Amino acid sequence: MAVYTDVTAEDLAQFLADYDLGDLLSYKGIAEGVENSNFVLHTRAGSFILTLYEKRVAEKDLPFFLTLMEYLAARGITCPQPVKNKKGGVLGRVAGRPAAIVTFLDGLWVRRPNPGHCAAVGEALARLHRVGSDFPLQRVNALSIASWRALYEQVKDRSDDVRPGLGTEIAYELDALENEWPRDLPSGIIHADLFPDNVFFLGDTLSGLIDFYFACTDMLAYDVAICLNAWCFESDHSYNVTKGRALLRAYEKVRGLSQSEHRALPILARGAAVRFLLTRLVDWLAVPDGALVKPKDPLEYYRKLRFHQSVRSAANYGFAS
Amino acid sequence: MAVYTDVTAEDLAQFLADYDLGDLLSYKGIAEGVENSNFVLHTRAGSFILTLYEKRVAEKDLPFFLTLMEYLAARGITCPQPVKNKKGGVLGRVAGRPAAIVTFLDGLWVRRPNPGHCAAVGEALARLHRVGSDFPLQRVNALSIASWRALYEQVKDRSDDVRPGLGTEIAYELDALENEWPRDLPSGIIHADLFPDNVFFLGDTLSGLIDFYFACTDMLAYDVAICLNAWCFESDHSYNVTKGRALLRAYEKVRGLSQSEHRALPILARGAAVRFLLTRLVDWLAVPDGALVKPKDPLEYYRKLRFHQSVRSAANYGFAS
Repeated sequence: MAVYTDVTAEDLAQFLADYDLGDLLSYKGIAEGVENSNFVLHTRAGSFILTLYEKRVAEKDLPFFLTLMEYLAARGITCPQPVKNKKGGVLGRVAGRPAAIVTFLDGLWVRRPNPGHCAAVGEALARLHRVGSDFPLQRVNALSIASWRALYEQVKDRSDDVRPGLGTEIAYELDALENEWPRDLPSGIIHADLFPDNVFFLGDTLSGLIDFYFACTDMLAYDVAICLNAWCFESDHSYNVTKGRALLRAYEKVRGLSQSEHRALPILARGAAVRFLLTRLVDWLAVPDGALVKPKDPLEYYRKLRFHQSVRSAANYGFAS
Repeated sequence: MAVYTDVTAEDLAQFLADYDLGDLLSYKGIAEGVENSNFVLHTRAGSFILTLYEKRVAEKDLPFFLTLMEYLAARGITCPQPVKNKKGGVLGRVAGRPAAIVTFLDGLWVRRPNPGHCAAVGEALARLHRVGSDFPLQRVNALSIASWRALYEQVKDRSDDVRPGLGTEIAYELDALENEWPRDLPSGIIHADLFPDNVFFLGDTLSGLIDFYFACTDMLAYDVAICLNAWCFESDHSYNVTKGRALLRAYEKVRGLSQSEHRALPILARGAAVRFLLTRLVDWLAVPDGALVKPKDPLEYYRKLRFHQSVRSAANYGFAS
């Protein structure tokens, strides 16, 4: 849960004077997002989300994220749409922080996805990849394989406190990933963080995608691998091939994966597991003893990694062989 | 900020099946209230607040609080109104916790109240006291003078870590309060926690009172003393007599204070300062070093107490002498 910056009614009124949203009726900090401070606003014009970008999001990247959301929303991908101020801009400042207002999306996120939800996510991801293919801006993936060794260096001395031998296992895996990582797969805009809490449903229908603040330019199949990690494991960390098959089939109905992408899926899935294992380890080890905020369990991704290491071919993920 | 209990869409859908609020469109945990978990709900019927009562609120007291809100709302005090389920009840369970839905109140809380805001609060408090006078239920004030010594016992060994000599000063003050505390002043329903974050304004107009979870039966003038503490000090902890006069005059236009209440105001204000000093000390000393959640500064109320100890008569608070 996250509200890092206190916003006064006076701060907000001053900011809203630049918008055509009518009087401010209420605003409440919400316990959503771990990178930014988020507020639900009610104004005469309706409900909106105000986001204050905190220090983990680079200010220079904000035009990329906001332009991308506008671009996708204009092309049928339901996602929060940046609201323009009277000067036509979408970025301002509140309480000293860069800030933007986006439209409020109805929908609920699903704690226990079923194969139907996985299929809906697969389809939405493929549509995002197709629509994003002509997006004119690029952003390097700041959490790609090139960054993992630096993250590992931050945690290696203490990762054995989390699980004995973990440091050595990650070191071996990093060596393997750096040797085998694919280079020539189709690239484009990826969401890079399409976890269940970033996908809204109304009933069984997917109603929108949120949180594009990790979006970047990278291999499309890597985004698929992230989703397999995020959506297709059970709470006992076993892989559910029925969910995997549902996600992949629905994806391929919109955008077919090439033979090279099929072949690369196991290594991409290992890489995705390592990426979340490492960032969660950094967060886990950064939290002081006794703190009230509990970070996400890094070992969830260690167990997923172990599964991916056991995979012999993409067929294990649910592709028709 | 507070969301102590995670609520799944499935939990909530099951709970809402007992209500006539239409489909659930979204819900978000909000960073408001320190005792309970609160969520903004959007349903086809509009916006609501869902509260899950956490362990600091006694379940046996919930009918008192909810009945009081209904009673006040029906008599022109704008406050959240409990929403009845299909069986006519207002209390249910979500995720194992007692839970209620109340109407959503528009409005913003004021960080830097001016004398106009103080007058509006004085008037609203007096109206609350008048309307509450016929409320049929009673609730003992669990944080009245009878409880302060027990709170002091919890913190006395470490209060000097917060400020040298603080423990001794509180001990002397408690002795004095126990000797001089008034007994025969008019009693009735008091809010007991009417701080700026519990009073909403739209523009300069007070739009509602929230958070009745400390409400109880106690001396009405004690509630006035709490408000003087909460609304009429500057950030440098000096008392602003203009704000005090505005609050008291507006209060007395609706409900006159007796001579005995006037005379008792300085001792009641000292008591109110001690009550918040003690509960803040308990919270302050309970938080582990390095925790991310910072409790409110107890010494703010030590400084206010020092002011009240210097007061010679109620005239110092802004009454016409």
